[in-house]
Amino acid sequence: MTTPAISRYPVPKLEDLPGDIRARMLEVQEKAGFIPNVFVTLAHRPDEFRAFFAYHDALMLKEGGLTKAEREMIVVATSGANDCLYCVVAHGAILRIYAKNPFVADQVAVDYRKADISERQRAMLDFALKVALRSAEIGDPDFAVLRAHGFSDEDIWDIGAITAFFALSNRMAHLTAMRPNDEFHTMGRVPPKRS
Amino acid sequence: MTTPAISRYPVPKLEDLPGDIRARMLEVQEKAGFIPNVFVTLAHRPDEFRAFFAYHDALMLKEGGLTKAEREMIVVATSGANDCLYCVVAHGAILRIYAKNPFVADQVAVDYRKADISERQRAMLDFALKVALRSAEIGDPDFAVLRAHGFSDEDIWDIGAITAFFALSNRMAHLTAMRPNDEFHTMGRVPPKRS
Amino acid sequence: MTTPAISRYPVPKLEDLPGDIRARMLEVQEKAGFIPNVFVTLAHRPDEFRAFFAYHDALMLKEGGLTKAEREMIVVATSGANDCLYCVVAHGAILRIYAKNPFVADQVAVDYRKADISERQRAMLDFALKVALRSAEIGDPDFAVLRAHGFSDEDIWDIGAITAFFALSNRMAHLTAMRPNDEFHTMGRVPPKRS
Amino acid sequence: MTTPAISRYPVPKLEDLPGDIRARMLEVQEKAGFIPNVFVTLAHRPDEFRAFFAYHDALMLKEGGLTKAEREMIVVATSGANDCLYCVVAHGAILRIYAKNPFVADQVAVDYRKADISERQRAMLDFALKVALRSAEIGDPDFAVLRAHGFSDEDIWDIGAITAFFALSNRMAHLTAMRPNDEFHTMGRVPPKRS
Amino acid sequence: MTTPAISRYPVPKLEDLPGDIRARMLEVQEKAGFIPNVFVTLAHRPDEFRAFFAYHDALMLKEGGLTKAEREMIVVATSGANDCLYCVVAHGAILRIYAKNPFVADQVAVDYRKADISERQRAMLDFALKVALRSAEIGDPDFAVLRAHGFSDEDIWDIGAITAFFALSNRMAHLTAMRPNDEFHTMGRVPPKRS
Amino acid sequence: MTTPAISRYPVPKLEDLPGDIRARMLEVQEKAGFIPNVFVTLAHRPDEFRAFFAYHDALMLKEGGLTKAEREMIVVATSGANDCLYCVVAHGAILRIYAKNPFVADQVAVDYRKADISERQRAMLDFALKVALRSAEIGDPDFAVLRAHGFSDEDIWDIGAITAFFALSNRMAHLTAMRPNDEFHTMGRVPPKRS
Repeated sequence: MTTPAISRYPVPKLEDLPGDIRARMLEVQEKAGFIPNVFVTLAHRPDEFRAFFAYHDALMLKEGGLTKAEREMIVVATSGANDCLYCVVAHGAILRIYAKNPFVADQVAVDYRKADISERQRAMLDFALKVALRSAEIGDPDFAVLRAHGFSDEDIWDIGAITAFFALSNRMAHLTAMRPNDEFHTMGRVPPKRS
Repeated sequence: MTTPAISRYPVPKLEDLPGDIRARMLEVQEKAGFIPNVFVTLAHRPDEFRAFFAYHDALMLKEGGLTKAEREMIVVATSGANDCLYCVVAHGAILRIYAKNPFVADQVAVDYRKADISERQRAMLDFALKVALRSAEIGDPDFAVLRAHGFSDEDIWDIGAITAFFALSNRMAHLTAMRPNDEFHTMGRVPPKRS
Repeated sequence: MTTPAISRYPVPKLEDLPGDIRARMLEVQEKAGFIPNVFVTLAHRPDEFRAFFAYHDALMLKEGGLTKAEREMIVVATSGANDCLYCVVAHGAILRIYAKNPFVADQVAVDYRKADISERQRAMLDFALKVALRSAEIGDPDFAVLRAHGFSDEDIWDIGAITAFFALSNRMAHLTAMRPNDEFHTMGRVPPKRS
Repeated sequence: MTTPAISRYPVPKLEDLPGDIRARMLEVQEKAGFIPNVFVTLAHRPDEFRAFFAYHDALMLKEGGLTKAEREMIVVATSGANDCLYCVVAHGAILRIYAKNPFVADQVAVDYRKADISERQRAMLDFALKVALRSAEIGDPDFAVLRAHGFSDEDIWDIGAITAFFALSNRMAHLTAMRPNDEFHTMGRVPPKRS
Repeated sequence: MTTPAISRYPVPKLEDLPGDIRARMLEVQEKAGFIPNVFVTLAHRPDEFRAFFAYHDALMLKEGGLTKAEREMIVVATSGANDCLYCVVAHGAILRIYAKNPFVADQVAVDYRKADISERQRAMLDFALKVALRSAEIGDPDFAVLRAHGFSDEDIWDIGAITAFFALSNRMAHLTAMRPNDEFHTMGRVPPKRS
Repeated sequence: MTTPAISRYPVPKLEDLPGDIRARMLEVQEKAGFIPNVFVTLAHRPDEFRAFFAYHDALMLKEGGLTKAEREMIVVATSGANDCLYCVVAHGAILRIYAKNPFVADQVAVDYRKADISERQRAMLDFALKVALRSAEIGDPDFAVLRAHGFSDEDIWDIGAITAFFALSNRMAHLTAMRPNDEFHTMGRVPPKRS
């Protein structure tokens, strides 16, 4: 049995990569224990790699009104709607960890309407799904709903922009047939105690 | 924090159930270590419960050209297309166990086209998805494709009938907002060794 | 000219069938004057036949808040949405007879919004169509609408479960290319008097 | 019980209509025994009435490679796809009569793929449905398929133009909530003998 | 480089046409400076040509509550939804001229929700798009919305009928691969002054 | 009459922007004669602005197997499918200029199937539209079609990645209600001579 391919495209060796890209990979490997395949796959195009992760970091690492778990919920819900295996599995793992909840990623990926999330989070995902699937229909009433749930206009930009960025990311994953690392499937799955 | 509801409808107590239904539940509890919520939810209507599980067993426990793992793949793939949280999570667990593969359920639920399955299984799931989503368009050419992959007409009935049964099951799960047992999320997730 | 096929699959002879199935067929023949093809087609798989009709009877013959005509309206409207020839024609006939109305089946099959039915029945069919086509989106507001029309939660289960059962039935009819008996096309079509 | 409305819009009295329109109505009444409601409804706008029936006659009464029954099949199949009650019921009646077949209209309205029609007619309806629902995608390969079934380019214009005309007609029927005459439901339903 | 074809079908010479059709063409040429290709294409079938333009004139040249620019907005918005190149380009030109606005046609063709039009016009186009794409769902609430914006029932007929007519027209344009005249692309594009 | 808003969000003044962003804007103003509103709108978030244009330049300014006009065709066709006014109008202008063709942008935005482009370009846009609308279904057969038209795998990455980037861009334009500059509507519309 052979190892399944990570990408439809050639995957560069770490030692052949530009220094800044190699450094980024070693940094994530240090932190996570492995290099997520999105790094390996996109490194095929260094300039696009740099822009991709600069955009990612600007949206996912910034301060703001959304928690890190909420940002990941947006990724998982919209990637589920786009049938994106890499993003559902990889960001599902990250969501489990940030939310300290072993079930929420499966819930949000399959049917966020029935997930163990707040009404405010459900409204956030309603908006995200609309941006993902029918963005031309976004209008003032959608903003009004989110404001009524306490989101600022900057929060709404975050929701929309994270969705927009993963619209790109999901399509790149389908284009390259990007495979999630095995590790992601089991991360954060230790079940919590219920009383 | 309260325990989340299992169903939109009242959930009967084990001791209040007709003897045959209680016996079935105790039997599955003995075997699995817990009672899957589909039993508890559907027991609200004993006659429908009996018919449901008779149908289920006729399709899922029978001998035939499809392996048990393949039957569960059909369930997981079509339930994914129907955004059915209960069936994706519960049958995903069963699929992982039958297939002895901790990744295949996530793959099939999100994007079976990129799953680690055979070409024959992909053709099986193409057919199942068509029955799930556009069944009026099923025609002789679809049968010809499956026969070319070695499926008999009885196998094709199995594929179509399992899909049809879970078209029912997915809709009952959405009607009742059926919640998957926590146990299902983690079953069968021990990662295998790769060489 | 040859008789058109009833099913893509072999159709068993009455005398070759298990006794209980043969008895059920003779009973319906006694009552209706002919054996509906759904019996003949599904008898190819006796265990599934038994479960199918047990489920059917549990939903369609029970007492409850829905009239028999209303149950058939649900079948006809959702089978129309699924382009299911057998169910539209066979259950259309039954609907005409129960409703004592020669027009309502054609109306409900093609466009229930313009049918000669009550507002309450239109709300019932709105819900049924949503279960048939977008069941993941069923939520508390849908239940609230039906309750406002006087439906109990048990009635709503009936509406949803009948729809779910015919989601299965429509798919089996497409899988087998089940042909409606000629008799169904003309049953109950005697026009009433209008004053 | 009151007579259901024929149209959302005012329905003119015969004696108030321009002479040419009244004459046309009396002519159809003479022939059919009643005045189809499409005449009554559209007479609300005499100029549009004249253009509508001139267009109708140019397409439906002309000589050509399509039989009258085939023209009506196109109307019934595409009106079924548009959920148009008036056109399915009224033209279904005409189709039964032209085809001397009491079943074909129900078949074509619900699922032409399983109707008792020739392969050539099925290809004709494939094309008509594509013009009805996804006309931008019509291209040279669609013409090639029809030519291979023996249709001339003028026949293809007929198929497309009849579909286009009933795209208009179906929308006018929905706009006005046009009600089919009771008579149409039962016309041509006497079952034939099978040998 | 050869001139691109105007139509998939033969295009008649002006001198071979019936007198009334030739006269109509010369009249439009006199007025517009060129003969729009819809005349040339549809002249292949003189009877249909006459009915088409009689219908067109009855809807587009009549007096009523809609301005000429508003009628063209309906054409451009619904033709955009139907991906109809001829109608978007030709009627876009006419819209720019009637509205004395070089931008509104592009706006309405691509996304009328963000066009520089009034709320009343946006409601008009919401209705038109619903008639174009989901006409079976048109009901009393849609009429109520338009009445609240000051539209009379006759205006609503106009909106619906123009949409219905261009449902026909768009399909004929796709059937014939009708090419817009080059002239239309640039008509009415002189930008206005803003203060 | 007031100037229509450029964005739902605050638009920064040039003098308040970070130096690198201001420099980029002055550079494009120097070249184009005006500052496209996408710069002004996205400058609300400097970090995202930098990543957006770094990504844009990596895809649109690079050497490769696609001409600049072909890259813009991909933008215009997929933005048309997403109803994105800003991108259709702004990139339509750029396409007209690169292609030296005043008609091709309108054609590609509305119906690329009927545009004056090569078969190879049509295959390119078939693929781009699939990535834009149904990216999960991209598979090896799609790659095979493009290779048969002479595209390298690197070209295919370009097609897919440009589409993915404008999936992001279209969604940001809808989120912010980004308005195209008036100038874009008329750029490159001088009609060429035909012989």
